Amino acid sequence: MAVYLDHAATTRIAPEVRALMVELLRVEGNPAAAHACGRAAKAILERARVEAADALGVSSREVVFTGSATEALDIGIGDLDLAPDVVVATSPIEHPAVLDALAGRPIVELPLDGEGRVAIGSAREILRDLGPRLGALVVTGAASETGVIQPVGRLAHIARSVAAKAVVVSDLVALAPLGLDAGSPARRMLEVVDVAVVAPHKLGGPTGVGVLVVREGTPLAPRRRYVGQERGLRGGTQAVWLAGGAARALSLAAAQGASRREAIVARRERLEQALVEAVPAAKVAGAGAARVGISLVAVPGARSEELAVLLDTEGVCVSVGAACRAGAPEPSPSLLAMGWDEPEARSVVRLSVAPETTDDDVVAAAMALARIAELLGAAG
Amino acid sequence: MAVYLDHAATTRIAPEVRALMVELLRVEGNPAAAHACGRAAKAILERARVEAADALGVSSREVVFTGSATEALDIGIGDLDLAPDVVVATSPIEHPAVLDALAGRPIVELPLDGEGRVAIGSAREILRDLGPRLGALVVTGAASETGVIQPVGRLAHIARSVAAKAVVVSDLVALAPLGLDAGSPARRMLEVVDVAVVAPHKLGGPTGVGVLVVREGTPLAPRRRYVGQERGLRGGTQAVWLAGGAARALSLAAAQGASRREAIVARRERLEQALVEAVPAAKVAGAGAARVGISLVAVPGARSEELAVLLDTEGVCVSVGAACRAGAPEPSPSLLAMGWDEPEARSVVRLSVAPETTDDDVVAAAMALARIAELLGAAG
Repeated sequence: MAVYLDHAATTRIAPEVRALMVELLRVEGNPAAAHACGRAAKAILERARVEAADALGVSSREVVFTGSATEALDIGIGDLDLAPDVVVATSPIEHPAVLDALAGRPIVELPLDGEGRVAIGSAREILRDLGPRLGALVVTGAASETGVIQPVGRLAHIARSVAAKAVVVSDLVALAPLGLDAGSPARRMLEVVDVAVVAPHKLGGPTGVGVLVVREGTPLAPRRRYVGQERGLRGGTQAVWLAGGAARALSLAAAQGASRREAIVARRERLEQALVEAVPAAKVAGAGAARVGISLVAVPGARSEELAVLLDTEGVCVSVGAACRAGAPEPSPSLLAMGWDEPEARSVVRLSVAPETTDDDVVAAAMALARIAELLGAAG
Repeated sequence: MAVYLDHAATTRIAPEVRALMVELLRVEGNPAAAHACGRAAKAILERARVEAADALGVSSREVVFTGSATEALDIGIGDLDLAPDVVVATSPIEHPAVLDALAGRPIVELPLDGEGRVAIGSAREILRDLGPRLGALVVTGAASETGVIQPVGRLAHIARSVAAKAVVVSDLVALAPLGLDAGSPARRMLEVVDVAVVAPHKLGGPTGVGVLVVREGTPLAPRRRYVGQERGLRGGTQAVWLAGGAARALSLAAAQGASRREAIVARRERLEQALVEAVPAAKVAGAGAARVGISLVAVPGARSEELAVLLDTEGVCVSVGAACRAGAPEPSPSLLAMGWDEPEARSVVRLSVAPETTDDDVVAAAMALARIAELLGAAG
């Protein structure tokens, strides 16, 4: 059995979600159809929307189901109706899908501090200099590589104080798995942002569905004509059972309360402790910052790809970086933006835990990394 | 129990597909990840791709899984790399999603004959006049409203004879449910087109997934940057279990052989016979043409919306037109293009059968329509 420490790439479907989806696979009828069969399907879809909205603390009219988080970002950012002369402030740690959704817009990048957080002081200066030219602020809830939680609330406050109409967007794909209870960082950010995106498959839901939150009053201008579904924001027959599974995963993450994020943080800390004991030279990115269940660990002198491959041969599944750029040869831009040098930034692997990660997983991973570091002469 | 005659909007998941998907919901791992868990997921995904390719008679490298048929059309048509000065020839009976994917390109529309087929003689003249300026031919495999099968093979031949590089695209969403055996119209079209799209949920597969076929050598230039998955044509974590369910639905439709389409055509003919006996004034669009399991039936003097609503109150689920434009107030452009007048084009409902449609369904629908026509004074 493999030791799975790549939950940030995807995690297993929760049994309750799986059971619901098995049921919903029986639903017939296209929710866009006006007849009884269509209305029955639509009723299930709309109940799922209410369930998701409750879990996120927003109105059901603000929840849009998409085919993936990538598509949700493409709609929620790409369709923003911004004046032509405005600038978008963003961070150097956004997911490539966010950068793609921003393509073609004038951008200003906010710097990071040494822990991998957007540096509030510098950000305040940059945003103030922009003033009313600031059209939108796009900052991830947590970095997908380092797991460092970002000061989205404070940045949103500054952004709106310099430009009242600035649209605030946050990719919550990496953050939401930490929990959706009322006191969770994701829920606090959802209170202040205009647009947010969640990937259900990273927190016990299915792949093939994304959740886009668009708060009321957010100016969107769909770029496509054929967008007859989901509030006129996308086309394609609505998949009732995917929406149902997505919503159930979100509501479980809300119902689990603070215990979910406490479990995740405790497991991540235990893992990091074990790793640093096993490989004293190892260094955790953003160790001083609040993080999700992600540890980006540098083993100086080793290379990311060889670490990942050797861990794989030891039966430990980890990522060389953010899942979606796996195999990319460039050093992590996040780490460079945090002031790491290039060799160091090329010596990292990303381990990510879930509530179901066991002590055995932690010990196995630490022992494997110790053997590999020894083998590579990088034990420090 | 409702009498469901809206299979062209969506049809139920085949038991074999459902069983497979219940299994695949257990698959962990992101197929984009390089480690053992990722490779295991990728192996299942690639087996699904081979299964789908075999069912379609194409190479597995030519199969792209998307989030919906709408997305598949957006990629397969919207990303076509055509010279800036070329024209796209298309038909007046394309699905709105096709028209959206064509938006911004210069278009010439080919006329229909009275049965709702693209008129070969006029099309030949138009295509010859275009000559090498013809960049692409986009004609649906079957009209989603009338169900009339189109002469895609002959049009493709003409198109390539006037412009050797012309790309031939066909939306097979309405046609594929008729069957995917070697002698089926869909398989014959797949042999001659460069790009084709299938919606698995219309033939026993799940919603939330589309299948795009891009034959080798077709010039595509993705418009987005963040397209790290599916041959560099889309982003988003690949949903292994959706691909598996889609592929299984296609391979069942291929394995059922000619008996599937014979069953569908027989049920549609039985339905039309019963309807015309019950309401002698009723008129079937494209009655003289080869069609899929769709009957677009006019009841002169009645209005589409009232027919659909009254049938619904009688427990018969039908569509007022193509599913995705349900509720649209315009008369069917297909019918106007076939030479129907506007009142007539506003008096239609679309009934669509599947192999599981029973004689009882047929009788119930015919009796309901008779009562409604009587009520509306439109029995003729």
